[in-house]
Amino acid sequence: MAKELTDFKNLCVHTITTKPWPIEKAAQEFSAAGIGGITVWRDALAGRDIRKTGNMLRDLNLEVVSLCRGGFFPALTASQREAAIADNLKAIDEAEALGAPMVVLVCGAAPGQSLTESRQQIQDGIMACLEHAAAARVKLTIEPLHPMYAGDRSAINTLAQANDMAEAINSPHVGVAVDVYHLWWDPDLENQIKRCAAHNNLAAFHICDWKTPTLDMLNDRGLMGEGCINLKQIRGWVEETGFNGFNEVEVFSNIYWHQDQQQFLKKITSAYLQHT
Amino acid sequence: MAKELTDFKNLCVHTITTKPWPIEKAAQEFSAAGIGGITVWRDALAGRDIRKTGNMLRDLNLEVVSLCRGGFFPALTASQREAAIADNLKAIDEAEALGAPMVVLVCGAAPGQSLTESRQQIQDGIMACLEHAAAARVKLTIEPLHPMYAGDRSAINTLAQANDMAEAINSPHVGVAVDVYHLWWDPDLENQIKRCAAHNNLAAFHICDWKTPTLDMLNDRGLMGEGCINLKQIRGWVEETGFNGFNEVEVFSNIYWHQDQQQFLKKITSAYLQHT
Repeated sequence: MAKELTDFKNLCVHTITTKPWPIEKAAQEFSAAGIGGITVWRDALAGRDIRKTGNMLRDLNLEVVSLCRGGFFPALTASQREAAIADNLKAIDEAEALGAPMVVLVCGAAPGQSLTESRQQIQDGIMACLEHAAAARVKLTIEPLHPMYAGDRSAINTLAQANDMAEAINSPHVGVAVDVYHLWWDPDLENQIKRCAAHNNLAAFHICDWKTPTLDMLNDRGLMGEGCINLKQIRGWVEETGFNGFNEVEVFSNIYWHQDQQQFLKKITSAYLQHT
Repeated sequence: MAKELTDFKNLCVHTITTKPWPIEKAAQEFSAAGIGGITVWRDALAGRDIRKTGNMLRDLNLEVVSLCRGGFFPALTASQREAAIADNLKAIDEAEALGAPMVVLVCGAAPGQSLTESRQQIQDGIMACLEHAAAARVKLTIEPLHPMYAGDRSAINTLAQANDMAEAINSPHVGVAVDVYHLWWDPDLENQIKRCAAHNNLAAFHICDWKTPTLDMLNDRGLMGEGCINLKQIRGWVEETGFNGFNEVEVFSNIYWHQDQQQFLKKITSAYLQHT
């Protein structure tokens, strides 16, 4: 089991978690709560000067943990795949401007072709972005997604598959994100976390909970403690590897987005101390 | 790839697929369409003399393929687990009365305990039913369920896990059901199908499709050809093992249940020939 959490310096909150707040408001509130990090979703940057926004975050003592998200490489036509690569190069530029050390990849899947084919296109797409990522000092972080998203969001559905790909690419500019929502059910999870870290690929750790029942496949995640994920155990496995990065709260929730966000942030910090 | 399907003698339809029809109507319609098999859900037997219903099905030249469903063994208290075992013994009796050679198990999972614990309770529950199953000549068939059901419906989420358990129990009265909806995404599927058959555990093959998007986690399955499952390839893997059982159409669909069931049955037989 992981050691108890007593403060928020390793807590990072994703802007999408408090989606109703503009990034400026979210940053002020996170900072006032003593939260150490922020992961920025690209939609939160719309209409902003990205470089100034990064400075604003740092002025509030928030570490910019990552930019979400790149990916969606697979497509049925070459021109669509090229457009996807162009968008990922743009995401790398945005991360560099923001001062984010990584871009998290939701890798994609294209209905109409096999998952094997989609995985090859993901690998090709990442390879095509590597030089640009290296120049920008930005890591491309493969996030395996739950198998319920294999149809259209990611052909990489287990940590083993993400590890396979990161090891095949074998670059310091590629890593892996472990998100408990996607991976908690996997009987091989502990081993694959160890393997991920042993190859220096463990780059991010995302937390939330899996509610029973889950009412919406995308936007009904629970806060830590509201569901059935063995989160303390998984955090223990992650920290046993020596990982000392952030615990990133990434909650998509129609329910919480409709609530008062200040109250919600209190629930987040409370759940973080009690149930993470 | 599998050989082309040209008739319906290996087609089995689950009563729940055409849920609005009482079993008597479903049986007449299936039989009139030349369909060879029927899998009976227990709710379809409510208020019927089960033995007479089995005879009615056979009189219509329908082979009774299986009874759905038993399982749901895990629970937080011993008395609940005993009640679950009692219900499974009853399901075995019903299968025997109906003349069904197997009971399909949706194994269960109990929020509040680990998946490992739930799996142990599943194994214990099956073992507790084995003698009764042997006496009734009924096979207990473990169906691994999609990881999106790990929270509350099944702690067995891959074919590897189902194979592990069937091999650990090692009884002629235990088998495994392969359902493409639950397993299509698994990169190890072909190997695990081979392994399943090599241990004489491949007892059932369920088909449908995975739609993108999927609007409901339980009741938005697609007919074959409507989604992204590599069904012909998977059927090929199954048949290469020598499996010559039924292709069972198991579709839970709020959309189709609201349509004219006679038209829907035509769609099923058409999709079966074209897309299976």
